[in-house]
Amino acid sequence: MSPADTKSSPQQVLADFRSLLEKQALVLELERQHPGPRAEITLQLLEKQHQEELKTRINRLHPADIAFVLENLPLDERSRIWRLVNPEHDGAVLLEVTDAVRDTLLADMDRREILEAADHLETDELVELVPELPSEVVPEILGALERPERERVQSALHFPDGSVGALMDTDIISVRTDTSLDAVLRYLRRLGRAPSGPLMVAQRDGTLIGLLHVEDVLTHDGETPVSEVMQRDPVAFHTNDEAEAASLSFERYDLPAAPVVNSHGRPVGVLNAADVHQYLHEQSQQDLLSQAGLREEEDLFAPIRQAARNRWAWLALNLFTAFLATRVIDTFEGAIEKTVALAALMPIVASVGGNTGNQTVALVIRGLALEQLGTHNLWPLVRKEVSIALLNGLVWGGVMAVITWLLYGKWLLALIMLAAMVMNLILASLVGIFVPFGLKLLGRDPVMGSSVLLTALTDGMGFFLFLGLAAAFLG
Amino acid sequence: MSPADTKSSPQQVLADFRSLLEKQALVLELERQHPGPRAEITLQLLEKQHQEELKTRINRLHPADIAFVLENLPLDERSRIWRLVNPEHDGAVLLEVTDAVRDTLLADMDRREILEAADHLETDELVELVPELPSEVVPEILGALERPERERVQSALHFPDGSVGALMDTDIISVRTDTSLDAVLRYLRRLGRAPSGPLMVAQRDGTLIGLLHVEDVLTHDGETPVSEVMQRDPVAFHTNDEAEAASLSFERYDLPAAPVVNSHGRPVGVLNAADVHQYLHEQSQQDLLSQAGLREEEDLFAPIRQAARNRWAWLALNLFTAFLATRVIDTFEGAIEKTVALAALMPIVASVGGNTGNQTVALVIRGLALEQLGTHNLWPLVRKEVSIALLNGLVWGGVMAVITWLLYGKWLLALIMLAAMVMNLILASLVGIFVPFGLKLLGRDPVMGSSVLLTALTDGMGFFLFLGLAAAFLG
Repeated sequence: MSPADTKSSPQQVLADFRSLLEKQALVLELERQHPGPRAEITLQLLEKQHQEELKTRINRLHPADIAFVLENLPLDERSRIWRLVNPEHDGAVLLEVTDAVRDTLLADMDRREILEAADHLETDELVELVPELPSEVVPEILGALERPERERVQSALHFPDGSVGALMDTDIISVRTDTSLDAVLRYLRRLGRAPSGPLMVAQRDGTLIGLLHVEDVLTHDGETPVSEVMQRDPVAFHTNDEAEAASLSFERYDLPAAPVVNSHGRPVGVLNAADVHQYLHEQSQQDLLSQAGLREEEDLFAPIRQAARNRWAWLALNLFTAFLATRVIDTFEGAIEKTVALAALMPIVASVGGNTGNQTVALVIRGLALEQLGTHNLWPLVRKEVSIALLNGLVWGGVMAVITWLLYGKWLLALIMLAAMVMNLILASLVGIFVPFGLKLLGRDPVMGSSVLLTALTDGMGFFLFLGLAAAFLG
Repeated sequence: MSPADTKSSPQQVLADFRSLLEKQALVLELERQHPGPRAEITLQLLEKQHQEELKTRINRLHPADIAFVLENLPLDERSRIWRLVNPEHDGAVLLEVTDAVRDTLLADMDRREILEAADHLETDELVELVPELPSEVVPEILGALERPERERVQSALHFPDGSVGALMDTDIISVRTDTSLDAVLRYLRRLGRAPSGPLMVAQRDGTLIGLLHVEDVLTHDGETPVSEVMQRDPVAFHTNDEAEAASLSFERYDLPAAPVVNSHGRPVGVLNAADVHQYLHEQSQQDLLSQAGLREEEDLFAPIRQAARNRWAWLALNLFTAFLATRVIDTFEGAIEKTVALAALMPIVASVGGNTGNQTVALVIRGLALEQLGTHNLWPLVRKEVSIALLNGLVWGGVMAVITWLLYGKWLLALIMLAAMVMNLILASLVGIFVPFGLKLLGRDPVMGSSVLLTALTDGMGFFLFLGLAAAFLG
C-alpha cells in the first residue's frame, strides 16, 4: 500500500470516476446522434480508450478504496465498474465491502470468477470470506487448499457467528517455558513470521500455561528463560464462549490480547483488542439500525423490493399497534364529539410519553449491555425514574395545562391535561424499564423492539388516560 | 492482575457485597431495637468487624471490578463503599468508571484525597484522568511532577476532545534508519521498555520517515539495517486532525497503528488500532443515547435533578413540536365534529410516517458517517427511498383502507386513508433524507435531533394531509 494511494481522499477518487463516467456517457450520446460506420468506429475507439483509463485507475487503488468507490455507486454503475476490477483484487475487495454490497457484487460473478477471487486470498482472509460465499462454491474452494489450510478454514467455519471461535485469529505460535528469549528470537527468525499478538507458552502436554508478550522478548536479557517473563495464567477464553461476553472482559480489564483454548486447554487462537473493539463497534452500529426498525444492514442503493422487505416486519408491527391505539380513541367517540379540542390535545400526551419512555429505554438497554443492571438494583432505578417522571410530568404538564387554559379557557380541561401527563409519564418510565428488562429475561435482544413496544403502550395509555379523564369529568 | 480476580464473575462479587451490606443493615437495626450501653458496644464491635470484612474484600479486587461494583450501587451505598477503597486504588478506579459515575465519586473526595489518588498514577494514566478532574486541583498535580512528565501531561491537555492528539499514545521510541536490528534490540533491552505499537524511524533532523514494526525486529536477521525492513511513508496523522476522520482511515485500510506527527513532521505519538476502535465504539454508544434524546451519558443512579436536566432539552423540543401538531388538528375542528372517526384514524397516518421516516434517517446517518453519501449520489438515493415509500404506502395504506372500510363502512373515508398514507410516506422519505443531510451541511451532528425533527414533520404532515383531504372530500 503506497502512501499516495491511501492518502488521496477517496472523495477525490470518486469525483474523478464520476467525470470519467460522464465522459463515457457523452461518447455514447455522440454515437447515437451521429450514426454511420465511420463515426461509429471513431467513437468505439474513444469509448474503448475511456474504458481503459477507468480500468487502469480503478486497479491502481487500494482494495479498500475500490470497495469505497463501489459502495458509493448506484447499482448499474457499480456493476459496470466491478467488471473492470482485476481478478486478483476481487477477493480483497469482497472482504472490504459491507455485507449488503457484497451480495450485489457476488450476484454479478459466476462460479469460475468466485473461485479465482478466492484463489488470490491468504488462509486468514479465506476464513473471513468463505462464510459469505454461496454454499455451492465452498467445497471446490476448500478442495483447492493444502491440508493444514483446509483444516484451518473448516474449523473456523464450525464456529457460529457471535462466538469467540469465529472472532479469534488462528495464527498463533507456541513456545516452551524453558526456552531462552534468544532461542525464541532465533526460532522466529528461522520461521520468518511472527503473530500480531503475544506468543502462547505451552506445557509439555500442549496445554496453555502463559503468554509471552513480544515486548518482553525485546526488553529482557536474551538469556532469560520464557518462564521468568511470561504472563502466568492469563484470562483465557474458550472457542464457544460468547464473543459479546469476552468483549466485555476486554473492555473492563483493558486486555491487549487473550488466548483462546479448546476443550483440552490447548491454545487454538488469540483474541486481539483491535478485533474485539471493532466487533463491538459493528454491534453498536447494528443496534442503531435495529432501533430504527431495519432488520439488517442495508445497501444504500439496495434494490427496492429487497429494501422494502428489510423494513416490513417493523412497519407491520407499528401499523398494528397504531391500530390498537385508534380502538382506544374510538371508545371515547362520545367525549370527542362533545369537546373537539380533545382530538387536538390527545397527541401531546401520547407523544411526550413516548419520548420520555424512550430515554429510559436507552439507559436501561445500555445498563443491561454493560451488565450494570440486574434484579438486585432494579428498585433504586425504578424509584429514580419514577421520580424524574413525576418531576417532568408536573413541570411540563403544568406548562401544557397553562397553554390549554390559554387556548380553550377551560380550567377543568387544563387540569385533565396535567393529570394525564403526570400519569402517562410515570407509566412510560415503568414501561421503559420493564419492557427491555422483560425482553432480556425472555432471552430476546432488548434493542430490537423495545422502542416499538414502548411507543405502542405509551400511545395507547396516553389516549386512554386523557380521553378517559375527559369522559369522566367533562361529563 | 491475578486470574482469580478477573475470572470470578463480577456479578458474584456484587452479590457477596450485597449480602454483607444486608448483614450490616441488620446490625444497625439490632442496635436500634436494643438500646443500652452494653448492647451498643457489642453491636459496634460487630459492625466494625463487617466493615473490615467489606474493606478487605473490596481492596482485593481489580480496579476495574471495584469500578463495576461502584457503578452498580445506588448513590448512598456507592459512597459508603467508595470510602472503604484504599487510596492507592482510587486513581485507577477513577479511570475505570464512566464519566457520570466519576463525577459522583469526585464529589465525595476533598482536595487532599484527589491529589493522593493522582499521586499513584503513571504519566499515561494521568494524561487520561487530569482533564476529568476539578480544575482547581490540576496546577498542584502538575507541580508535583518531574519536568518531562509535566510537559507530557500539559501537551496532552492542549489537544481538544475529538482530536488525534487527545487520542494518541505519547509513549513512543524513535530509531535511525542506519541502525541494525540487533542494535535496536540492544537499545530496547538497555532501555528496559518497549512501546505497545511500532517504533518510529526518524531522519537526522528528527522528521518521520518510516515505521519499524516489532514483528520485523523479531523475524529478520539481526544484521539487517532498519532502512531495509521499515515501512516507508506510512499513513501519518497530525495532532490536530479529527479523531473521527482518522478512525475512518483505520477502518478502511485496517491499519494496525499509525504515527502522529507535529507541524514540523516529527513523531509525537502513535494511534493504535485498539484505541481507535474503542473510541469508535464509545462514539456509537453515545449516538444510541443521543438518538433517544439524552444530552450526555447518564449514571443509572444519577441524582434526580441532574438526570432531569439531562433530558429536558429534547423533552421541551418534543413538547413544542407536539404542540404545533395540535394547531394543525385544531384547524380542522369542523371536519372532526362532523366525522369523529377522523380523530381515531389520524394517529395511524402520523405514526406510520414517523416510523418509515426514521428508517430512512438511520440509513442516511450511517451513510454520512461512512462518507458514502454526498451530493453526487443523492439523486439515486432519493429515487430509491421514494419508490420504497410509494410501494409501502400502497401496500400498507391499502391494508388500512380495507380496515377503515370494514370498521366504518365508508368507501370515501377508506380512499382518503389510502391517499394520506401514500403521500405522508413519500414526504417522510424525503424528509428522512434531507433533514440529516441538511444538519450535516450546516455543520451539525445529524444524530442529534434528526429523529425529533422528522417526527415533528411527519406528525404535522400526517394530520394535515388526512384531515385536509377529509375536509375537502367528505364535505
